[in-house]
Amino acid sequence: MSLVVMKFGGSSVGTTERMQRVAQRIIEKKEAGNKVVIVVSAMGDTTDDLIDQSKLLNPNPPAREMDMLLTTGEQISVALLSMTIHGLGHQAVSLTGWQAGIRTEDVHAKARITDIKPERIFKALEEGNIVIVAGFQGMTEDGEITTLGRGGSDTTAVALAAAVKADVCEIYTDVDGIYSTDPRVVKNARKLDEISYDEMLELAHLGAAVLHPRAVEYAKHNNVKLVVRSSFTHNEGTSVKEEAVMEQGVVVRGIAFDKNVARISVLGVEDVPGVLAGMFGALAESGIDVDIIVQSGVQGGKADFSFTVSGDDRERAIAVIESIRSKVPYLETTSEANLVKVSIVGAGMVSNPGVAATMFKAISSIGVSIKMVSTSEIKVSCVIDSEPLGDVVRALHTAYGLDTAEQVFVGGPQDRR
Amino acid sequence: MSLVVMKFGGSSVGTTERMQRVAQRIIEKKEAGNKVVIVVSAMGDTTDDLIDQSKLLNPNPPAREMDMLLTTGEQISVALLSMTIHGLGHQAVSLTGWQAGIRTEDVHAKARITDIKPERIFKALEEGNIVIVAGFQGMTEDGEITTLGRGGSDTTAVALAAAVKADVCEIYTDVDGIYSTDPRVVKNARKLDEISYDEMLELAHLGAAVLHPRAVEYAKHNNVKLVVRSSFTHNEGTSVKEEAVMEQGVVVRGIAFDKNVARISVLGVEDVPGVLAGMFGALAESGIDVDIIVQSGVQGGKADFSFTVSGDDRERAIAVIESIRSKVPYLETTSEANLVKVSIVGAGMVSNPGVAATMFKAISSIGVSIKMVSTSEIKVSCVIDSEPLGDVVRALHTAYGLDTAEQVFVGGPQDRR
Repeated sequence: MSLVVMKFGGSSVGTTERMQRVAQRIIEKKEAGNKVVIVVSAMGDTTDDLIDQSKLLNPNPPAREMDMLLTTGEQISVALLSMTIHGLGHQAVSLTGWQAGIRTEDVHAKARITDIKPERIFKALEEGNIVIVAGFQGMTEDGEITTLGRGGSDTTAVALAAAVKADVCEIYTDVDGIYSTDPRVVKNARKLDEISYDEMLELAHLGAAVLHPRAVEYAKHNNVKLVVRSSFTHNEGTSVKEEAVMEQGVVVRGIAFDKNVARISVLGVEDVPGVLAGMFGALAESGIDVDIIVQSGVQGGKADFSFTVSGDDRERAIAVIESIRSKVPYLETTSEANLVKVSIVGAGMVSNPGVAATMFKAISSIGVSIKMVSTSEIKVSCVIDSEPLGDVVRALHTAYGLDTAEQVFVGGPQDRR
Repeated sequence: MSLVVMKFGGSSVGTTERMQRVAQRIIEKKEAGNKVVIVVSAMGDTTDDLIDQSKLLNPNPPAREMDMLLTTGEQISVALLSMTIHGLGHQAVSLTGWQAGIRTEDVHAKARITDIKPERIFKALEEGNIVIVAGFQGMTEDGEITTLGRGGSDTTAVALAAAVKADVCEIYTDVDGIYSTDPRVVKNARKLDEISYDEMLELAHLGAAVLHPRAVEYAKHNNVKLVVRSSFTHNEGTSVKEEAVMEQGVVVRGIAFDKNVARISVLGVEDVPGVLAGMFGALAESGIDVDIIVQSGVQGGKADFSFTVSGDDRERAIAVIESIRSKVPYLETTSEANLVKVSIVGAGMVSNPGVAATMFKAISSIGVSIKMVSTSEIKVSCVIDSEPLGDVVRALHTAYGLDTAEQVFVGGPQDRR
């Protein structure tokens, strides 16, 4: 008998019909002889509706009260899902985050899970129940209700899987699994059977919205076997694990891209200690997320460097830089919007020279110039103009041999002979 | 410095504007130098909406899961009210039932409060907060979320007032207070300054929906000073207490009526022990509330008796009686719908002979015949035809001297000289 954690997102339970389908799916898993722990997000637009309601009363509400408000969304989901399962003749018990023993640090809106005391879950499982836990929420030592922030339900699922020592943590989504790149851009994009935690982490940070990076980190740290799969089909999905098998001769796992990127360059900065810390500290304090940072060297005691932010933050970021000019002197700033960051990710590239060169060549071969480059052990990112993004991604997909996918067999097992 | 519990119902916080007004009202109380604990119900139609949603998924959901679902309504209210108060520049902390230390018995949908551990409320008050507690909910010893059933938020308010030893528990409603009778029926109906717990209990049971009987019982038992007042005006309201002052010469406090009453008579019942228990036990098991029961004597070993139920339950009640005919033999049943029960209530009547006679005379003087009579120490109820109810109530109001109200002074204190 296996112990399985299944996580369903808000859109999977957004309508009565979908809720019924998810319940059926869960019952199938139970009837196949598994113990089942479910994690659910708030239904459809519930969270947004609650936020809208709160803004009418206080445009800037305290985070503690926002957590009180928003956690009701998941509580509604778990109660309704449990009722649905009961309606289909099976036993289920819903639990809030605090009832499920999920302890977090004493921070609102983005708490981290510190501990899970799963006794109550075990007891309910022993009694033959399907256990349904509200995602995204927990409780501090002092009994304060907290939320885990973006991607919180994924994190709840992974943390619960680790705490109850589940055999697998299945994340159900709108898509079949993790793809080599966005199928809307590259027709030949293919679903990956496996991917490593590190590769998944890079892809998640790069905007592949399927899994939240924090959940992937938690899974990696606790060695939880993750499977990303569709809540609408019974296809196999993508396994996320420590060591993922690579096909012969393939070094790149997938290609990600991030639109609406702006580059800001600060030229002629006095090269004194603390300059970078001052500048990026000021940006962080203003809540501006900086992605790539490139410094190109120092000449005559002055340095030029460039960084990227979301296109929405471009003007604010420039204002911040100007506001600290007296503390961090520089000659001028330049900036450019409407850029994209395209990245190749693959654990194999660290031992394969020339991977980056292949990327630069593929991009330049279609006449696109590269504005910034950033590399890590398993990733190369290039910032380029947003047009023609599709051509660039398709060129890279081909250049790294990702088009020549294994054949996808349609039909029953006999076809696979 | 006084400690005040203020309770607001769902309609008082049903819109953004009303929520703002309630917040303002609470802040006034705080700024007048009081410590303030608030109890709120779910906003407007929230509870009904949640019930509707659940019915789509399971027409007969488990009570435990229903409690999980419905308690979110009050959690949303307290969070939004707290945010609103913060938006107006004051400190507030919202608490769920379990956070407020409200323990209940292990029953769903209609749990009774067994204990309140108010440490957390005291701590939040000490820190200068307005404390906002979700009504209608609590937690069992095992950490299960429960609801208190109908009128639960009133009960929460009274129980909290007892636990924190509040100086007063103010119940804010749509009306100015408790009236001598329904002002929609009798233009001269007047607001009572005071009423005793027992009188309030009778009136509450008689359909005066302002306060739930369970809350009144709790207040009486714990000697909590209750005030019923309007959330829309600053009028004084009605005090509910142990001994309420009566005006000279007035023995009836108020007149209540209950529409949609049906009478069922069972004739020629074999007078053997256990007959009544069998019949009313069967009705209770079928969930039918029986109100007045009258037995008119035994003749020749057979008894006739009559009882009233809600008009909606009439046919079901007759079916139950027929279904047990083999165990409880009788000759026949008769029944009549579209009746009303009109009642006079007053603690003084026990020592005043002739109070009932005045009632019978007033009713018969306008040509209405009385079908059933039931009396208690502080109440006389008559079941009559539903027309002309207004004339009957007005006649009684006059007969008991309730029209000759004390003058109501409008304006400032100088007018009272």
